Amino acid sequence: MTTPDHPERDTARDLQGIVGLPEGVEPPPQLFDAIWAYEAALMDDDVERLGAFFAQGPDAMRGDATGLLVGRDRIDRFRSGRGGAPARTVTEIQVRPITETHAYVTSVNRPDRGGRGLVTQLWERSGSEDATPGGWVIQAAHVSAPPPAMDSRIWRVVGSPLVEGAAEGPLTGVCLAVKDVFAVPGQRIGAGVPAYLAEATVEAAPAAAVASLLDAGATVVGIAQTDQFAYSIAGRNGAYGTPPNVAAPGGLPGGSSSGPASAVASGQADLGLGTDTAGSIRVPASYQGLWGIRPTHGAVSLAGALPLAPAYDTAGWLARDGHVLLAAARASLAGAGQRGVDGRVAAVNVGLFDAADEGVRHGLGAVIDALSDRDVFDALEPVAVPLPRDLFEIFRYTQSAEAARSWQAWIDAHPGALAQDISERFAWAAAVTEEQERAALAAKAAAREAIDEALGDTILLLPAASSTAPATDASADRLQAVREATLGLTAVAGITGRPALSVPLLELDDGPVGLSLVGPRGSDVALIETALAWVEALQ
Amino acid sequence: MTTPDHPERDTARDLQGIVGLPEGVEPPPQLFDAIWAYEAALMDDDVERLGAFFAQGPDAMRGDATGLLVGRDRIDRFRSGRGGAPARTVTEIQVRPITETHAYVTSVNRPDRGGRGLVTQLWERSGSEDATPGGWVIQAAHVSAPPPAMDSRIWRVVGSPLVEGAAEGPLTGVCLAVKDVFAVPGQRIGAGVPAYLAEATVEAAPAAAVASLLDAGATVVGIAQTDQFAYSIAGRNGAYGTPPNVAAPGGLPGGSSSGPASAVASGQADLGLGTDTAGSIRVPASYQGLWGIRPTHGAVSLAGALPLAPAYDTAGWLARDGHVLLAAARASLAGAGQRGVDGRVAAVNVGLFDAADEGVRHGLGAVIDALSDRDVFDALEPVAVPLPRDLFEIFRYTQSAEAARSWQAWIDAHPGALAQDISERFAWAAAVTEEQERAALAAKAAAREAIDEALGDTILLLPAASSTAPATDASADRLQAVREATLGLTAVAGITGRPALSVPLLELDDGPVGLSLVGPRGSDVALIETALAWVEALQ
Repeated sequence: MTTPDHPERDTARDLQGIVGLPEGVEPPPQLFDAIWAYEAALMDDDVERLGAFFAQGPDAMRGDATGLLVGRDRIDRFRSGRGGAPARTVTEIQVRPITETHAYVTSVNRPDRGGRGLVTQLWERSGSEDATPGGWVIQAAHVSAPPPAMDSRIWRVVGSPLVEGAAEGPLTGVCLAVKDVFAVPGQRIGAGVPAYLAEATVEAAPAAAVASLLDAGATVVGIAQTDQFAYSIAGRNGAYGTPPNVAAPGGLPGGSSSGPASAVASGQADLGLGTDTAGSIRVPASYQGLWGIRPTHGAVSLAGALPLAPAYDTAGWLARDGHVLLAAARASLAGAGQRGVDGRVAAVNVGLFDAADEGVRHGLGAVIDALSDRDVFDALEPVAVPLPRDLFEIFRYTQSAEAARSWQAWIDAHPGALAQDISERFAWAAAVTEEQERAALAAKAAAREAIDEALGDTILLLPAASSTAPATDASADRLQAVREATLGLTAVAGITGRPALSVPLLELDDGPVGLSLVGPRGSDVALIETALAWVEALQ
Repeated sequence: MTTPDHPERDTARDLQGIVGLPEGVEPPPQLFDAIWAYEAALMDDDVERLGAFFAQGPDAMRGDATGLLVGRDRIDRFRSGRGGAPARTVTEIQVRPITETHAYVTSVNRPDRGGRGLVTQLWERSGSEDATPGGWVIQAAHVSAPPPAMDSRIWRVVGSPLVEGAAEGPLTGVCLAVKDVFAVPGQRIGAGVPAYLAEATVEAAPAAAVASLLDAGATVVGIAQTDQFAYSIAGRNGAYGTPPNVAAPGGLPGGSSSGPASAVASGQADLGLGTDTAGSIRVPASYQGLWGIRPTHGAVSLAGALPLAPAYDTAGWLARDGHVLLAAARASLAGAGQRGVDGRVAAVNVGLFDAADEGVRHGLGAVIDALSDRDVFDALEPVAVPLPRDLFEIFRYTQSAEAARSWQAWIDAHPGALAQDISERFAWAAAVTEEQERAALAAKAAAREAIDEALGDTILLLPAASSTAPATDASADRLQAVREATLGLTAVAGITGRPALSVPLLELDDGPVGLSLVGPRGSDVALIETALAWVEALQ
């Protein structure tokens, strides 16, 4: 070891018995010194020293189970956000020298926390010998760390199964993630709020929406996380951690049905049961590339579910596969009056697209063009609806007043129980005056009438969210702007009680976005059938 | 594509937009053809065609979260045991050409079942062009597949936490895995038998052994799997799958406390609560490189736990860290009379070492030599105890008669409820006659007296198991031979009611083995303290 920054180490002794090399092959000079010095820097969490070991430029790579980062910039951002790597001991190093300047290295490590880890690296002798032993740097890495018992950002409880469904039905074999606002027999409701969970009692019977799915054969695999009291569309949860978004690594999952959405997107469940007051199913579906539907208001019973704002609350579903969503909707809406819809005519409104980011606007425009090209539509009709900004204002006052009525007494009795963002939102809600609410209710009635008149029985196409998933480290201001823009879109269904579907039809560079279909009230099942036919036409 | 076996594919079109290459770098000729043909063979689960894509010889590697396989033979064995790879779509391929004949490739895939996967491969142009496009083969691979919601081979239920422990205590921050034979409030007991679980009622109060740990601050993270009715030391579970053994990939976990042991070894829990009738804590501890203790018979209450053979049943613990084991033992044995032990004298018996495999015998011999070298002992005394074979026979008849009394009525009422191996063991047990049991009980009393006289207050050193973990595909005959040899060792503590500790002091090529310390009755805590001092002396 020649550089002063690297700890002295008796490499020969340390490596005895743990190194594997092809027979007769010598290790490249100083490679082991570099491997050892890197490991030491990692254990010291010495970010600067670590930096010297990673190749510069846009071709460096680092991947793990959560995704692949390409380019030194993205890798550095990940590293600075992670904190230190867990302490570990390397127990085996297999080296496959390729040239004098390149080696493929896979090592097994034993984390102090238990389990085993596996790291593969492409080492390249292209750096400065002042910076690392021999100038060896890592051009690419693939890291496997042992998984936890359960990803507690996604789940609060998991079982195999937690609740068995009926032996046979249209949802047999379907694993269900239930948002933590519904009653599940034998379990408490936690609502994303530890202090609420601590006082909750064990539920004896399933919520009505859970019962329908169990009767149809679905098995409950677990109770999935929710934004606190379901009062957010971002998907952050200060108490349990933010669920991952596999469709947009580094992006927020969307909320408040964040846990069910992440469970379904990550393959840990097939179907998510969520609630949607302001977009809490459609937004995570959009951010994570899932099918999601907010049903007609009132069509699915909310018995056994926690309220947020009853005038807007609905229970609905998320799935990777549109046919699973369809089966869930059919099973759950069997008793509700359902009607057909004309899938050959669709309405669009420029103002609704203008409220979205440019990429979303253009991308979804191209999707609609592609559908037109496949002769899906007889007509695409422009319609006039109120501006999203106005819809947002109506929604915000009327929803907030109800949310305060649902929870303010509990919040007053439990100071400090909520994360700051949710707490501030409830504080804003508590300040809405009766006059403000009354004015907003009048505006709501007028808006509802205007939209109903404009749409009639026609399907309206609009963005399911105003953007792809914001980054997990997005500023509060950015999140508020996204929230306002998105709620202006989702409020079309909220204010009219119409069903709204999000269909995963667009992938931008930084993640997916859904195309939303808003249909006439009672057209939930027909809306999904229509979208499935459209998707088939695109293939 | 030139060879007839590979499907024609429009590589140029398929790769559009998903390939990443350093700027200005051309992909090596035919590499993409090979990558694509390999993917197709994988999706077809065409084992023969796949075989052609993997480099021959002892230097080929394949690693995933469960371990690293080195050498084509071991990889082939894994492949043939796995069944097909899950269907997936490759969504991104990053290629880093190294030479004309070597390329480092990382690809992201989207499994049909959800989530994302990551695969890194070292491709080498060293094969026959008749066998693969361009003669490209994979020299090494690292695979990350999305994790399930929970590893149901290890766990039956998991929560965050499932049951909260006392706010402060010596076990605060310790995550506990409870074997599925103990009552956990709000949960049923499953005993590894789905038909038993289905009829079980929800427990209101924790088993006494669980309560002690909760009172000491441990939190229950989940209920971990057990061999059916705890009647095995192998760790196989036909109903829920065999828990993995991270310390010996491809090896059995050991049982019957297989779930708690795998949970602790894999880092998904810090402490396991298990039972040990015939070795059910010591054997999985030995196979998985953990600390584990079977306490003095009767010292830990079994209230709220299912019985197997009460004359032998004990509740005890497994941990990665001996200090965690010590804290659990202290907390749980606070009310039991505990005594000291002289750690400077140890007894050994040649017959007990002869019952173990050669590698275990030699390896543990070397460990004892190393302890002697560190002046741990004033004396190492040879003692005479009955032959392991005889101890096994005594144990087998007396335990089986009790096991039949515990469960035969239930088994008769539930035909087909048990896996074949456990069912056959119970059938053998049911055939034990009263005369056989009486004779065995008389022999047991004599053996107990003989051992007590030989050992007095001295610590006896012996192998915790007769071998490292048998392979998961070991034959029934091999498993029976291992069972008989191991029970001859574990029965020393079983027959005398003495506490027996397994300490992870030996790693052989195919896995760890524990050194067992059997102390005088009531010396449980002192035994762990002694072993900790020895381990410290070795460092």
